[in-house]
Amino acid sequence: MKEYKPLNPLKVPRFSDIRTFWRLPYLKNVPKDVDFVIVGIPFDTGASYRVGARYGPEAIRSQSLILRSHNPALDITPFEYCSGIDYGDIQVIPGFIEHSYESIEKEYFSIIRRDVIPIALGGDHSITLAELRAIAKKYGPVALVQFDAHTDTDPDYYGHRYNHGTTFIRAVEEGLLLVDHSIQVGIRGSTYSKGEIDNARNLGFEVITAEEAYKTGIDYVAKRIQERVGDARVFVTFDIDFVDPAYAPGTGTPEVGGFTSRETLELIRKGLKGLNFVGFDLVEVYPQYDPGFITSLLAAHVIFEFISLIALNKKAGLEAKV
Amino acid sequence: MKEYKPLNPLKVPRFSDIRTFWRLPYLKNVPKDVDFVIVGIPFDTGASYRVGARYGPEAIRSQSLILRSHNPALDITPFEYCSGIDYGDIQVIPGFIEHSYESIEKEYFSIIRRDVIPIALGGDHSITLAELRAIAKKYGPVALVQFDAHTDTDPDYYGHRYNHGTTFIRAVEEGLLLVDHSIQVGIRGSTYSKGEIDNARNLGFEVITAEEAYKTGIDYVAKRIQERVGDARVFVTFDIDFVDPAYAPGTGTPEVGGFTSRETLELIRKGLKGLNFVGFDLVEVYPQYDPGFITSLLAAHVIFEFISLIALNKKAGLEAKV
Amino acid sequence: MKEYKPLNPLKVPRFSDIRTFWRLPYLKNVPKDVDFVIVGIPFDTGASYRVGARYGPEAIRSQSLILRSHNPALDITPFEYCSGIDYGDIQVIPGFIEHSYESIEKEYFSIIRRDVIPIALGGDHSITLAELRAIAKKYGPVALVQFDAHTDTDPDYYGHRYNHGTTFIRAVEEGLLLVDHSIQVGIRGSTYSKGEIDNARNLGFEVITAEEAYKTGIDYVAKRIQERVGDARVFVTFDIDFVDPAYAPGTGTPEVGGFTSRETLELIRKGLKGLNFVGFDLVEVYPQYDPGFITSLLAAHVIFEFISLIALNKKAGLEAKV
Amino acid sequence: MKEYKPLNPLKVPRFSDIRTFWRLPYLKNVPKDVDFVIVGIPFDTGASYRVGARYGPEAIRSQSLILRSHNPALDITPFEYCSGIDYGDIQVIPGFIEHSYESIEKEYFSIIRRDVIPIALGGDHSITLAELRAIAKKYGPVALVQFDAHTDTDPDYYGHRYNHGTTFIRAVEEGLLLVDHSIQVGIRGSTYSKGEIDNARNLGFEVITAEEAYKTGIDYVAKRIQERVGDARVFVTFDIDFVDPAYAPGTGTPEVGGFTSRETLELIRKGLKGLNFVGFDLVEVYPQYDPGFITSLLAAHVIFEFISLIALNKKAGLEAKV
Amino acid sequence: MKEYKPLNPLKVPRFSDIRTFWRLPYLKNVPKDVDFVIVGIPFDTGASYRVGARYGPEAIRSQSLILRSHNPALDITPFEYCSGIDYGDIQVIPGFIEHSYESIEKEYFSIIRRDVIPIALGGDHSITLAELRAIAKKYGPVALVQFDAHTDTDPDYYGHRYNHGTTFIRAVEEGLLLVDHSIQVGIRGSTYSKGEIDNARNLGFEVITAEEAYKTGIDYVAKRIQERVGDARVFVTFDIDFVDPAYAPGTGTPEVGGFTSRETLELIRKGLKGLNFVGFDLVEVYPQYDPGFITSLLAAHVIFEFISLIALNKKAGLEAKV
Amino acid sequence: MKEYKPLNPLKVPRFSDIRTFWRLPYLKNVPKDVDFVIVGIPFDTGASYRVGARYGPEAIRSQSLILRSHNPALDITPFEYCSGIDYGDIQVIPGFIEHSYESIEKEYFSIIRRDVIPIALGGDHSITLAELRAIAKKYGPVALVQFDAHTDTDPDYYGHRYNHGTTFIRAVEEGLLLVDHSIQVGIRGSTYSKGEIDNARNLGFEVITAEEAYKTGIDYVAKRIQERVGDARVFVTFDIDFVDPAYAPGTGTPEVGGFTSRETLELIRKGLKGLNFVGFDLVEVYPQYDPGFITSLLAAHVIFEFISLIALNKKAGLEAKV
Repeated sequence: MKEYKPLNPLKVPRFSDIRTFWRLPYLKNVPKDVDFVIVGIPFDTGASYRVGARYGPEAIRSQSLILRSHNPALDITPFEYCSGIDYGDIQVIPGFIEHSYESIEKEYFSIIRRDVIPIALGGDHSITLAELRAIAKKYGPVALVQFDAHTDTDPDYYGHRYNHGTTFIRAVEEGLLLVDHSIQVGIRGSTYSKGEIDNARNLGFEVITAEEAYKTGIDYVAKRIQERVGDARVFVTFDIDFVDPAYAPGTGTPEVGGFTSRETLELIRKGLKGLNFVGFDLVEVYPQYDPGFITSLLAAHVIFEFISLIALNKKAGLEAKV
Repeated sequence: MKEYKPLNPLKVPRFSDIRTFWRLPYLKNVPKDVDFVIVGIPFDTGASYRVGARYGPEAIRSQSLILRSHNPALDITPFEYCSGIDYGDIQVIPGFIEHSYESIEKEYFSIIRRDVIPIALGGDHSITLAELRAIAKKYGPVALVQFDAHTDTDPDYYGHRYNHGTTFIRAVEEGLLLVDHSIQVGIRGSTYSKGEIDNARNLGFEVITAEEAYKTGIDYVAKRIQERVGDARVFVTFDIDFVDPAYAPGTGTPEVGGFTSRETLELIRKGLKGLNFVGFDLVEVYPQYDPGFITSLLAAHVIFEFISLIALNKKAGLEAKV
Repeated sequence: MKEYKPLNPLKVPRFSDIRTFWRLPYLKNVPKDVDFVIVGIPFDTGASYRVGARYGPEAIRSQSLILRSHNPALDITPFEYCSGIDYGDIQVIPGFIEHSYESIEKEYFSIIRRDVIPIALGGDHSITLAELRAIAKKYGPVALVQFDAHTDTDPDYYGHRYNHGTTFIRAVEEGLLLVDHSIQVGIRGSTYSKGEIDNARNLGFEVITAEEAYKTGIDYVAKRIQERVGDARVFVTFDIDFVDPAYAPGTGTPEVGGFTSRETLELIRKGLKGLNFVGFDLVEVYPQYDPGFITSLLAAHVIFEFISLIALNKKAGLEAKV
Repeated sequence: MKEYKPLNPLKVPRFSDIRTFWRLPYLKNVPKDVDFVIVGIPFDTGASYRVGARYGPEAIRSQSLILRSHNPALDITPFEYCSGIDYGDIQVIPGFIEHSYESIEKEYFSIIRRDVIPIALGGDHSITLAELRAIAKKYGPVALVQFDAHTDTDPDYYGHRYNHGTTFIRAVEEGLLLVDHSIQVGIRGSTYSKGEIDNARNLGFEVITAEEAYKTGIDYVAKRIQERVGDARVFVTFDIDFVDPAYAPGTGTPEVGGFTSRETLELIRKGLKGLNFVGFDLVEVYPQYDPGFITSLLAAHVIFEFISLIALNKKAGLEAKV
Repeated sequence: MKEYKPLNPLKVPRFSDIRTFWRLPYLKNVPKDVDFVIVGIPFDTGASYRVGARYGPEAIRSQSLILRSHNPALDITPFEYCSGIDYGDIQVIPGFIEHSYESIEKEYFSIIRRDVIPIALGGDHSITLAELRAIAKKYGPVALVQFDAHTDTDPDYYGHRYNHGTTFIRAVEEGLLLVDHSIQVGIRGSTYSKGEIDNARNLGFEVITAEEAYKTGIDYVAKRIQERVGDARVFVTFDIDFVDPAYAPGTGTPEVGGFTSRETLELIRKGLKGLNFVGFDLVEVYPQYDPGFITSLLAAHVIFEFISLIALNKKAGLEAKV
Repeated sequence: MKEYKPLNPLKVPRFSDIRTFWRLPYLKNVPKDVDFVIVGIPFDTGASYRVGARYGPEAIRSQSLILRSHNPALDITPFEYCSGIDYGDIQVIPGFIEHSYESIEKEYFSIIRRDVIPIALGGDHSITLAELRAIAKKYGPVALVQFDAHTDTDPDYYGHRYNHGTTFIRAVEEGLLLVDHSIQVGIRGSTYSKGEIDNARNLGFEVITAEEAYKTGIDYVAKRIQERVGDARVFVTFDIDFVDPAYAPGTGTPEVGGFTSRETLELIRKGLKGLNFVGFDLVEVYPQYDPGFITSLLAAHVIFEFISLIALNKKAGLEAKV
């Protein structure tokens, strides 16, 4: 087992001690032999409808305590192969999106320069632009896999260029993405205009709507993700509104008719397995709309799958060396 | 775009301004060129188990603010083809069902006489009898499509003829329905007696239970609705308990083992498309049992589909003229 | 109709009168001609993560009031063939698990010695060990059908042998089970170690994980249960975390990616039909995590299915006599 | 100790067993040597604003489990001097107020004819009219002590004579009250008209508004109650909205600026001590608006004080005999 | 009675129809003979701790429906003397405080230029700066009466000049206030620095802390307000966190040890009576933290008192003319 | 300012970063120059009625983020005079009280041996026995100031000696207290027996009931505490049920008629000022019963007062040296 790993739940009861993610060590200085870093970005000034994602990181960390060591579905015990810490939260400036973008990009970059895979807990979806800026600064443009009910490619809102609905048009405009290797999955619900989904496609994204996904099936969608991304470095952004409100009520712009948690896990496991990850985020958890905590619980588990995928890659790398 | 339409959510934030449905104009006098009218009927004296549907219209209006202009699944931008208003609520007399029936019928009739399609927000399911009386007064008997976990055809409760469980036996007895063109879908859960579902069939309804629907599939059920209704004028009544409690906890007599939101939308889109609508209602939303607001959210979206179907008919009519 | 049966909901409104299960008679002395007995076991000292199952029996009883007389899916009106009472709760000693085990076993045995089928409302899953001790005292070892997200076969927690995660390893060690006829269904989520599921299999259980069940289908799983149990006397234990958190948020260690209520009912109806029941329990309902009451509602309905299955057996027995 | 008394909380944990009030015996036939009877009247068709008091009795019973044997403030152990049972609920007919009035009066009368003091759990305040009719049938007109934010003496609502706001004008009109000995305390908040409070005074009631009570003090108000009632037989009706919404949010028409729980208890203890009680009720508990359960908790404790007052009278009677 | 007034609650049940404040007419064009205008300002980008005041106006409007016609404590029936409308909400730009300030000031000014008294529903406390800019544009600097737990005079936050904690230092700097006639009441809780309260005093405000108020009593504080303001035009700003969290949990930075609702009403009635009002606001209602709705209820009632005070002034003006 | 102190809320938004108490440094090894240590003890196996205090430390830490640097009421900026850390939680063994007592005592002793003042976050009130054992091991018997609605001196429950209702009879029996210098304040509510409060007095405690406190006033009670404790080393235990349920609903055995938050703060400030503290705890916070979070908020603020009192002593010590 690695040095930086969760407390043992059979020794220290899971309801006990400070709420870091999965009870990982809380360290503001990233040590050398760390593979991934949990980082909170409690920013929600970019929200256009409901608000409250600033409490998303707290809620996800709180529910993550249920996690145990082994992932039977992927047959991996993550901390046999990789180690991780919880960095705490990045500095944000509530009420000021452009200033926050600068602050997030800078601090996020100071973390990833140490060659770790960041896993960010949002915050609303506007934060991903800052993350991608830092990612592109280190790696150049990367592929994007976006699980989301919305394309988030609206040109502007109320005459402003930045909020949680414009993230990916900005990312394309700024050249942060390998759009030819990027894909959006799960789009559904009403749109601001007839051409909204086509706009995303015109920007270069492959877009699979929820209805298309239901028709073609999880296996096919997973295959499309794998083929689209290929060997490119890839950033995975998971908007919890990808999932149906029955499974994830605690979000900012919930859209009915969505995916179940079972489908979600299957798609993550199959669609992302073996990709060349440079970062993940999970955004749009609004604890005030999550009275039974199931949204945060699901979010924590999705991140558990992300960590498992990182570990699988490490394991594969080790085995390849042999 | 039509004159009577929602506020623009890219200009006026969706969380803003008075809570009419979809932020439609609030008008007590129905203007000439209006196609549909949202009308609240906050009556819940007919409830036999839980209570609180008097707050249903408020909750549905509140959650409807999330709606945007275009329906990608049906490929229609409703307000390009039709216009609508929110009338506010009809006068009810809490505690007095027969007096309320008179009041609802009268005011409802004064609306529909202007040749608009009413979309009522309940209230418990007892209100549909008053609606149907007004509908029949204008159109004669009509077909009924009822999405519901219960047949609501019990002869009486506690020695009384009127409550939310006797609506459709009364409607048949009063000659308000074309029973040969009427259909009930989604019936499930425990019943008061062995013969309850057969009683509904004996009244003339086609009844498709939830178990039958799961076996035969959504496409088949949609086809049955289309065939059953045919060209008849049709009233659509949607009891939110049609949907599983995971998706719609906020209702009066929830029955486990129900439909998902995805199946529900698909069935509405396919089963109702192109029918000759004279009215809709959506009933049995109980906000006090809906802590994450997902029931009202789903209700608002179902009505969005209804409006889209009205627009599709208008569009088809326009295209037919060309 | 039998003597010991629920109040008539068409006469006495379902929201009315003292909250026994299904408004059955509340009797501390089990009468002669009773077939099943509802018994609460409000013990939650065995919980390792969340806590609060001591309020499970109250919540299930409260939501059970919605139940009506007939089960259309199984085509049975239970109280035509069997009668039942609500015994109230068994004496537990909060904070003291071994003392509680003694108390539960003793009082539970005093009930079942009258040849009734007990249906226990938990309480956390630790209580099942006490139930099985009493059952084995009367019948010798029995088969077990366990619906659960977890195997509950961990050797110990924090250095102690008893809590809700060690119940079934203890039951095997104590010789209470016919392990060759026992089966665990629905296992999923993260585990404490790589070998956890294999450990359960090594103890002799057949284990069908959730992922295996999704692949093979409900019909196959139902067949496996039937074949595994065969003619053996069987105890059915239903941990509500078998179901997905969207359908049952109110539980102690929820695991995402679970079964829907529809799948659950179908599996119960097919998998358990005609088995030779000696007892049932339903455990791990935590009302504080169930803001819309849907967990308790589902729990009440699952017990309704159990009662229907008992009645079906009685009916079959009567018909066999003819 | 008397025969009919609560379970011992030091033996049977208070969270355990069937939810009768204070875990008193549940008996539909009132035994001979019983002094008081708890009776639920889950009727809420009379509610003009919020609704849901049908779940009041369940909630009060649930929170009453916290009660222990002795009342230090009044220095009395009630069950040393009196005995009581929980009768369960009286038959109501939801949706039909006049029919319910008949039903309540009849069943309530069948209880009080056995010379017990009834303590009714509402239900909305309309039920008190039915109670008073039965009381007057047995005793002739009686004095009334009404703790309430509202006079409930409006002539009619929406053209109807019966709902929870007209109870006491009807009671006066029907001659059920000794108005010269009757008093209303705690009136506050906005009123339908300028003369509303004067109307109550013109009916004959002494009315002490909240503002007057704050100025004169609890001791003075208690004295006014004692003097007003004198030796007359008295019925005490306690509307929980007497208390401030901070202490009792779970009610139908909450009025800010109300009494604290401390003032309330003091007023009850001093104002009612030694009066000649013929009945009590506690009404307008709406559990859906009581997320922390403090309203039901307070209601249960108020009833604990009522029972203590009954016991004090019994004790005084015994001592007088000596 | 005036033309622009609430619906009659004895005719149209209070739970019925569109949620404007007190069910006043909803008019975007302010008619001539209107005395006060309710206006929502759903802006919450200025919040430094919790967030969600964008839903404040909806919640206050929803709970305001309980209000009736007459105010017995002030002996005034407001709509006999004044008339009012609900304007709906002012345009805000979520995420952009300076742009929102411009928008709010402009639209607010367009309302008050018609010589009406605005009553704004916040929104966080940052909005008051925009209101005061418009007020000063029309009237020049005005007196301020601020009910609040915090002085809101911090120089900056995170390097920015505008948020809900800097409103009144900015207002002084911009010359919007007659500081010699301005007073802050209720300050308490922890402060960012030792000198924080002195800073407010150095800016020119009279500051009465909560502890000082408790010592000197409500009458004295009311007198201080009256004397401080004198004949000056006055703007009243009411931060709901003035009240204790037991009475108003639903706010952004609650401070324990606060005022009761009773004290609050008394202070408003005595402290503000007869002042020369140019505007009111009520801010910092966060519905997501208000599970029993008591915060919004209190807010609605406070506004009812404001309206009553306006009416009293009108009445006094009329009587003076005679 | 000291080295170990909270993050600056004007730089790092208070909703940000890992939830330690007041965002103090999280350190498992207590550094040399630390004055107080926050330590969680998430044990709730000792609860006899409700349960869930294991989540108390998380909730109090979460709400403590609102705290700022200065305490105006006591005129002290704590971190100018003292420094503190958050140790995280002590190891408990859920379900096993005696084993937990050993574990808590040992780990707690390892902290206090470094001459720091511990401030424990419970957990139910059973934990105080373990704390006092460690305290007595270091200091010998100490005085106790207990704020509580209950004496917690019952001899046993269900035949067992340890739970949250027997803590202080055990402490006296074990010789851990200077009973002649110990005092219990706030006792109220129903009791298990007539003599319960006398029993506490017979053990040697001074007991001031809530009713006595209301009569004599806060100043008098504060004086009694000061005189009773005198110069003795004192441990302060604060059961949150001391406060009225309106102010602190989230607790295990709430008793109506309690203290307000204002009275509570005043009593703490006056009654405890200048005492010779060896430790504090705050127990019985049950987050599941605290929907608006006001209980945890109050708890966090009470601890803020405790820290302020520690700082005042340090300041006085420094000044005495000069």
